[in-house]
Amino acid sequence: MKLLEDLAAREAAATDRSGHRPDTLPDGVVRATCVDDVVETLRWASAHRTPVVPRGAGTGLAAGASARAGEVVLDLSGLDRIVQLRPDDQVAVVEPGVLTADLDAAAGEHGLFYAPDPASAAISTVGGNIATNAGGLRCAKYGVTRESVLGLDLVLADGRRLSTGRQTVKGVAGYDLTSLVVGSEGTLAVVVGATLRLRPRPAETATLAAHFDDVVAAAAAASAITSARLQPSVLELVDAVTLEAVDAARGSSLRSRGAAVLVVQCDGRGAVADTAAVGEVVAPFATSWSSTTDPAEAEELLAARRAGLPALEATGDVFIEDVSVPRSKLAEAVSGVQAISARTGVRIATIAHAGDGNLHPIVVVERGATVTEGPPWEAACAVFDLALSLGGTLTGEHGVGLLKRTWLRAELGQDSLDLQRGLKAVFDPLGILNPGKAI
Amino acid sequence: MKLLEDLAAREAAATDRSGHRPDTLPDGVVRATCVDDVVETLRWASAHRTPVVPRGAGTGLAAGASARAGEVVLDLSGLDRIVQLRPDDQVAVVEPGVLTADLDAAAGEHGLFYAPDPASAAISTVGGNIATNAGGLRCAKYGVTRESVLGLDLVLADGRRLSTGRQTVKGVAGYDLTSLVVGSEGTLAVVVGATLRLRPRPAETATLAAHFDDVVAAAAAASAITSARLQPSVLELVDAVTLEAVDAARGSSLRSRGAAVLVVQCDGRGAVADTAAVGEVVAPFATSWSSTTDPAEAEELLAARRAGLPALEATGDVFIEDVSVPRSKLAEAVSGVQAISARTGVRIATIAHAGDGNLHPIVVVERGATVTEGPPWEAACAVFDLALSLGGTLTGEHGVGLLKRTWLRAELGQDSLDLQRGLKAVFDPLGILNPGKAI
Repeated sequence: MKLLEDLAAREAAATDRSGHRPDTLPDGVVRATCVDDVVETLRWASAHRTPVVPRGAGTGLAAGASARAGEVVLDLSGLDRIVQLRPDDQVAVVEPGVLTADLDAAAGEHGLFYAPDPASAAISTVGGNIATNAGGLRCAKYGVTRESVLGLDLVLADGRRLSTGRQTVKGVAGYDLTSLVVGSEGTLAVVVGATLRLRPRPAETATLAAHFDDVVAAAAAASAITSARLQPSVLELVDAVTLEAVDAARGSSLRSRGAAVLVVQCDGRGAVADTAAVGEVVAPFATSWSSTTDPAEAEELLAARRAGLPALEATGDVFIEDVSVPRSKLAEAVSGVQAISARTGVRIATIAHAGDGNLHPIVVVERGATVTEGPPWEAACAVFDLALSLGGTLTGEHGVGLLKRTWLRAELGQDSLDLQRGLKAVFDPLGILNPGKAI
Repeated sequence: MKLLEDLAAREAAATDRSGHRPDTLPDGVVRATCVDDVVETLRWASAHRTPVVPRGAGTGLAAGASARAGEVVLDLSGLDRIVQLRPDDQVAVVEPGVLTADLDAAAGEHGLFYAPDPASAAISTVGGNIATNAGGLRCAKYGVTRESVLGLDLVLADGRRLSTGRQTVKGVAGYDLTSLVVGSEGTLAVVVGATLRLRPRPAETATLAAHFDDVVAAAAAASAITSARLQPSVLELVDAVTLEAVDAARGSSLRSRGAAVLVVQCDGRGAVADTAAVGEVVAPFATSWSSTTDPAEAEELLAARRAGLPALEATGDVFIEDVSVPRSKLAEAVSGVQAISARTGVRIATIAHAGDGNLHPIVVVERGATVTEGPPWEAACAVFDLALSLGGTLTGEHGVGLLKRTWLRAELGQDSLDLQRGLKAVFDPLGILNPGKAI
């Protein structure tokens, strides 16, 4: 274990991609290359009562890995081995620094895939995904990260090692510590290994893209797909503000075809028939739609979705919200976000995992402007209020981090927060693990 | 709230279907008919430091609901309303006493289904399923109870009410208290309501049954199905001992067709093609196989599986084990159980959720004989040891209850148990909720 104290290391590890800028820098950074480095760091931190901020690739969107003076960053991105890939068990054992897309690619060589696929999969780590219980596009059908984690290897706050869960698909011996740690944003223990469920790669995939005159029609079509008892593996919505940014970035003309796009993917041996059924459902809402089983054409149909966030980031600084609502409320949520944008004069783009009712309203401000005050922040707050008023949650998959803690009590209530703080104290009695985050 | 103290009520609530017989009876029984009954009972119990044993339909298989002198049983089977069924959100809100099959049937009227389907679904409650994180046949594809629980309404040990989770498909605000309570066997809180995920009923279903000369070949065929990257919704194995009991009970001649049966179901618009692919995989292992899309014929193919346990129970008293192993170890586990039976002279039948690697070796003794001592218990212990030696777990879906606690430390280790007891103390500082169970 070596504590890096130079300015460059401290600056590089100070925050994530949320747009949050702490007003001080962490005291130092440990770049772990083996589990012993983690054990030693936590023993040292416990002895010195020094807060530790675990960090993966720093792609978080809620400032869950932001660190400041008095804190030490524990960078786990160097623990990046795929330790085992057991195709016949459909199980992988990995270190936390493995990039999510790399694991998926390794599984692909055996006809398998790793289901969680946040938009950041190519640059985010499995450990970071576990910290936030990341979702993604495919979780419409295959569930979020928690549903793919069978067991964890942890280092506790005092440096002891602990394994949770199991190597088997099912298991109910004792409390589900694994699920408790998934999504706990580094506040309960440090993940140094994960046993993950892989799934059979589907025999066939078909992709459909539909264009709409307005985004509320697109949202209504998405809800209609769910109501029709269809189960796409991907069901994504992209609004006009995003399409304009994509067109500007790529020289495409998507916006001219309508004010919103739905991209739908079905998989399995019934993929073509399922996609045809989706087409019938969306047709009354859409201005046009097309489908394909060709992988290259499918990528083209998905391009508007994939290019959305980078295109928006090219036009200014962004704050990405992550509210989730019951699926039948999707159109109401989308039109509510539009009304907030109109009322506050703040530019808000919306990309949504429509199949889950999970919206990413993206507040876009001029480069260098602050999101966390003035009208942009008022707009962001109004979106949270909207989600809660529709029976939703303030975060579907990005986590609470530092930035969403102020709303947490409104959603959970004081009793729940007190109980959760009690649980944290059992894992971390000295309160050194990522204090001030998540709960 | 009314405490029933008559002998009949106390005898009826003293144990479950595990075969365990406590040597004393509980002091009394409260049959709750509303949430206030639960609140009042727990306030009273806290004030008097009286242990409370929550109970659903009493179909548990690990003595998780067994109660004795000094304890009071809280019977929740009277809280049996389906409060909401929101088809467009694919969500149901239910009280804990709803029978699992009744919820599934109610969902079916809207083209939906409730995925968890333990063999006891017709007689077990949703609340009991939540207590044990029950699995079933369909969890091969659709996951166990935890994957279908979005949120819970709880009464805490001191009588306070607390809601966990959410009404949405996704959500990561705060720690996952919902997953922690699922599978905790009534030791953390009393579940008085659940928000459950429903799923679209598949467009098509096809069923295949294959016969084998010996059970190890059947297990190998099951593993081969998984290895072939096929994803059946049901993949069940039934051995010769069970087939003989089924033949005796039903007058069938299944045993004459081979020493083991695999029953496989695939669903979705690709069901027929998937089942044909399963047929190709099992053919080299099997003596014969047939498939159908006719629901009545499918039920006939499934009959050997469904009739298995009742048929065995007709031949004697049973102790049902619930070990789970990595899926590639299924054949090794099945042959290991056979060897244990041969070595100890104890009759052991095996039914397995083969798709999950979850085996139910069923120790059968003469009516009235004790399972928990002598050779039958030695055989049961040997099965646990076998599972752990194969990287497995002692319980896949039935829970730990009272009967499996002695093995728990071997699987989890002392540090994990200590941590779990710390978590319990946060929820239940007086230790009045189902003490001595689960952990």
